[in-house]
Amino acid sequence: LVRHDYGKARVRVLKVRRRGKVHDVREITVRVALQGAFEESYTRGDNASVLPTDTMKNTVYALARQDPVDRIEGFGLTLARQFLEHRPVARATIELEECPWTRVVVAGRQGREPHPHAFIRAASERWCARVEQDREETRIESGVTGLRVMKTTGSGFAGFPRDQYTTLQETDDRILATDMDAHWRWAEAPSDYAVSSSLARDAMLEVFANDFSPSVQATLHAMAEAALARVPQIGEIRISLPNLHYLRVDLSPFGLDNPGEVFIPTDEPHGLIEATLARE
Amino acid sequence: LVRHDYGKARVRVLKVRRRGKVHDVREITVRVALQGAFEESYTRGDNASVLPTDTMKNTVYALARQDPVDRIEGFGLTLARQFLEHRPVARATIELEECPWTRVVVAGRQGREPHPHAFIRAASERWCARVEQDREETRIESGVTGLRVMKTTGSGFAGFPRDQYTTLQETDDRILATDMDAHWRWAEAPSDYAVSSSLARDAMLEVFANDFSPSVQATLHAMAEAALARVPQIGEIRISLPNLHYLRVDLSPFGLDNPGEVFIPTDEPHGLIEATLARE
Amino acid sequence: LVRHDYGKARVRVLKVRRRGKVHDVREITVRVALQGAFEESYTRGDNASVLPTDTMKNTVYALARQDPVDRIEGFGLTLARQFLEHRPVARATIELEECPWTRVVVAGRQGREPHPHAFIRAASERWCARVEQDREETRIESGVTGLRVMKTTGSGFAGFPRDQYTTLQETDDRILATDMDAHWRWAEAPSDYAVSSSLARDAMLEVFANDFSPSVQATLHAMAEAALARVPQIGEIRISLPNLHYLRVDLSPFGLDNPGEVFIPTDEPHGLIEATLARE
Amino acid sequence: LVRHDYGKARVRVLKVRRRGKVHDVREITVRVALQGAFEESYTRGDNASVLPTDTMKNTVYALARQDPVDRIEGFGLTLARQFLEHRPVARATIELEECPWTRVVVAGRQGREPHPHAFIRAASERWCARVEQDREETRIESGVTGLRVMKTTGSGFAGFPRDQYTTLQETDDRILATDMDAHWRWAEAPSDYAVSSSLARDAMLEVFANDFSPSVQATLHAMAEAALARVPQIGEIRISLPNLHYLRVDLSPFGLDNPGEVFIPTDEPHGLIEATLARE
Repeated sequence: LVRHDYGKARVRVLKVRRRGKVHDVREITVRVALQGAFEESYTRGDNASVLPTDTMKNTVYALARQDPVDRIEGFGLTLARQFLEHRPVARATIELEECPWTRVVVAGRQGREPHPHAFIRAASERWCARVEQDREETRIESGVTGLRVMKTTGSGFAGFPRDQYTTLQETDDRILATDMDAHWRWAEAPSDYAVSSSLARDAMLEVFANDFSPSVQATLHAMAEAALARVPQIGEIRISLPNLHYLRVDLSPFGLDNPGEVFIPTDEPHGLIEATLARE
Repeated sequence: LVRHDYGKARVRVLKVRRRGKVHDVREITVRVALQGAFEESYTRGDNASVLPTDTMKNTVYALARQDPVDRIEGFGLTLARQFLEHRPVARATIELEECPWTRVVVAGRQGREPHPHAFIRAASERWCARVEQDREETRIESGVTGLRVMKTTGSGFAGFPRDQYTTLQETDDRILATDMDAHWRWAEAPSDYAVSSSLARDAMLEVFANDFSPSVQATLHAMAEAALARVPQIGEIRISLPNLHYLRVDLSPFGLDNPGEVFIPTDEPHGLIEATLARE
Repeated sequence: LVRHDYGKARVRVLKVRRRGKVHDVREITVRVALQGAFEESYTRGDNASVLPTDTMKNTVYALARQDPVDRIEGFGLTLARQFLEHRPVARATIELEECPWTRVVVAGRQGREPHPHAFIRAASERWCARVEQDREETRIESGVTGLRVMKTTGSGFAGFPRDQYTTLQETDDRILATDMDAHWRWAEAPSDYAVSSSLARDAMLEVFANDFSPSVQATLHAMAEAALARVPQIGEIRISLPNLHYLRVDLSPFGLDNPGEVFIPTDEPHGLIEATLARE
Repeated sequence: LVRHDYGKARVRVLKVRRRGKVHDVREITVRVALQGAFEESYTRGDNASVLPTDTMKNTVYALARQDPVDRIEGFGLTLARQFLEHRPVARATIELEECPWTRVVVAGRQGREPHPHAFIRAASERWCARVEQDREETRIESGVTGLRVMKTTGSGFAGFPRDQYTTLQETDDRILATDMDAHWRWAEAPSDYAVSSSLARDAMLEVFANDFSPSVQATLHAMAEAALARVPQIGEIRISLPNLHYLRVDLSPFGLDNPGEVFIPTDEPHGLIEATLARE
């Protein structure tokens, strides 16, 4: 038995904070994994140290009542600390993912205004956090996943080597589309996780939109550098960019040209470019 | 052989319209279904009248080059007319669903501005159209699907009958969440399908947000009435609202109250309320 | 208000029947929809006739205790009858889908034998039933969904018309793959729904496997006829067959031939052939 | 830039091997990831060493023609070796997942027999392999994923510690259901990967079915030990078992008992137990 952990996954919770008629919501999915002195539950069927995963679920609900849950990183810390109260636990890892809810905008007295307690899913992206805590240290990561973006020009791919199986043409104008996944480790805590994370996200998005892309690799690197430059508390960033191909349709059999107007979106196969950059 | 149709589903196409550096995009999934004099392909294996579904796919691509594709209803009409050129076809039904892409907002010379050719998926909802055309008439529907909304107060459910299997408590304050699906038939063509559809959507959303909901049924009815009132060209509207339950957690075993703060979001089971309203 | 129904979807239940150490299981997902005198809940917010959907869920659980649940059609009937007890209900429609569990086969005293109470998911297909009952009549359908099959030869497509958008080549040897969905209405009740449904399924599968397919249409028709011929109680059958394309890869750029050996499986786009046959 | 890799994911291929009328099929999804001297593509936009991911896709297709593809491990090795031909590549990692197709059984001359070229998806589980090769060594893993099993008795959970958030009752009879994921590293190559992998799978399944489970942890450990005992070439095995809860419904509000007959299947939240065992 060389490695083991156990926990509870897909624990969903909605926290509503009420300030009179104005409500705030956080909808979060939590995953708890514990490591520690649990060997005898595996080897001898002895459950004396096994905090039930049902208890972990209850703990998420009970602490969601007691914690403000205004930042997923803070709620993750609250949970990790609670599980470390249980002596056999050597390390608690809490992963959190937040579904985006934004306010519905409705006609109000002074034009269109955000509604106090009606919300809409207005993004595909989700905010993530991961808190890993043992008896000595705490490691916090934040991130964004499922950020779907596309640019219809300003992207090429050329100068690559060819072998007997290469048929790809060089191009200086293609569509670049991706479903970005980025996670960053905090070297020091920012004053506000959500604010600093938004800065990192926006810095990456501006590079994606504005800079010519000679390859997904180069764009990924520039995005990571921009996040590191914009947010000094980030120590390391890991980005994963699928290259979601939009295939230019050959319309010549129908006597038509296709000057970059008609493309087939595809899900598979896709390129997959991943890298981690650390601050020196 | 009492009924039959055939066609091509999940034909995906991206149309890029280029106005210099400024691009517009429409990403659409098309479903084509044809009805007509195709009996002998079923009963005798005779394909003489069977326009291949591969040809339908090619037709979508080729017409995406020739049509502006600025409105899915218009593109659906273009497709339906083309398939009716094929004599054995008695009726062509074209269903279209548009994935939302909006412009990335970046820092510009005068503050934050939309990017000319970088786009982001900033909504869960999708716009739909359905064009059904035969040799005599054309029927056009538009709609929105996957519009995920929630209100954290302003919703109750009381005064219902009880039988031996009823355990539900009456409430005057619960969470109401749904994933709305609404489709409306045009009695007459609006001057701009997208503009009128947005008006209908916004009218429904305002009712959802602003009005107290005594039941999903009553809210659905009020939303449908609002759409009919706001957009006179709509002749009939069909709405489907799942009731996505958020369960208030009983925290009393942990010595905690729960004044509407902590809920469990659930996917299943869910209520499902559907109705169709027609203008008198 | 021209049409309305409401109910509960995705109600999941597992029924275990215990005969000593030998257990039988049925895992079912139920959807209940009621039609009737519910107008005032829509138009006036009056819930006096609205049996809560939560009660429907409880009813499924409670009746699963009292009914043997050995056939989904029978359980559907039990549920429909119960909901019709509620006076405002004019019609109850119960849809049921059964997840397949079969016994794990283990080494036993006389070679490999089925285990009395350990089960495995050994099929992709699911059994379906639909019971629709009003104050006058009952209509029962059974079916199978998600039956994924493929044949690597014995299928062609030729003799079809060509227009300006046709590029498809004729072929007398292609792969035919589908994800079959078939539902049949019982003109009279069979002595055992599950036995007769299995006969219908097997009859269709034999046609798929054994007969040359000149088109999906012809194969669908022959399959439907085989089911009608094999099971006299079936009055009408409706089959939907996606044509899931396996594309032969052109390996000539690599100096290789491809005599029907290497194909690309695709999910989209796909053909979609649907028909209903009724017994004369 | 502290880590980077790139490649192609979701490359699907079907290999048909034809022995007269009798065909064999393998449907595989491949993921290729390369590590090596690709820094300058990230930092300088220089693609001179970047073998296109499109070439990787073509390589999968071309080698599927030249390799027998009778074992996914062997095909993975063929692919890894090919990518290492490209000098900048330091390590190639090939992940393969095989969709199960088994022969349709039809009536034949001597009773029911397997069809020579018609196939059906008759399992939820998928076979996996992972080949990781650098200039010095090769590491091969095999596995099975998505093996959905359940036992309706012979499972309990008791003797666990309780804290302020524990509400779970002890039980000596509950349902145990899981969706098993197991991967094993070969210390030495077996004479036939598929045969040895099946032995490992069956050994684990017998433990699951036959042995009383005092916890998922103990069952996982016993399953891993059984696989190591049955197949001497396995050096290490890693198992992940979600605990998919089936909740016994409280029917007492309806005046009914529930002696382990009616359960609610749930997807979330679920327990998650993971461990790795290595041969000493």
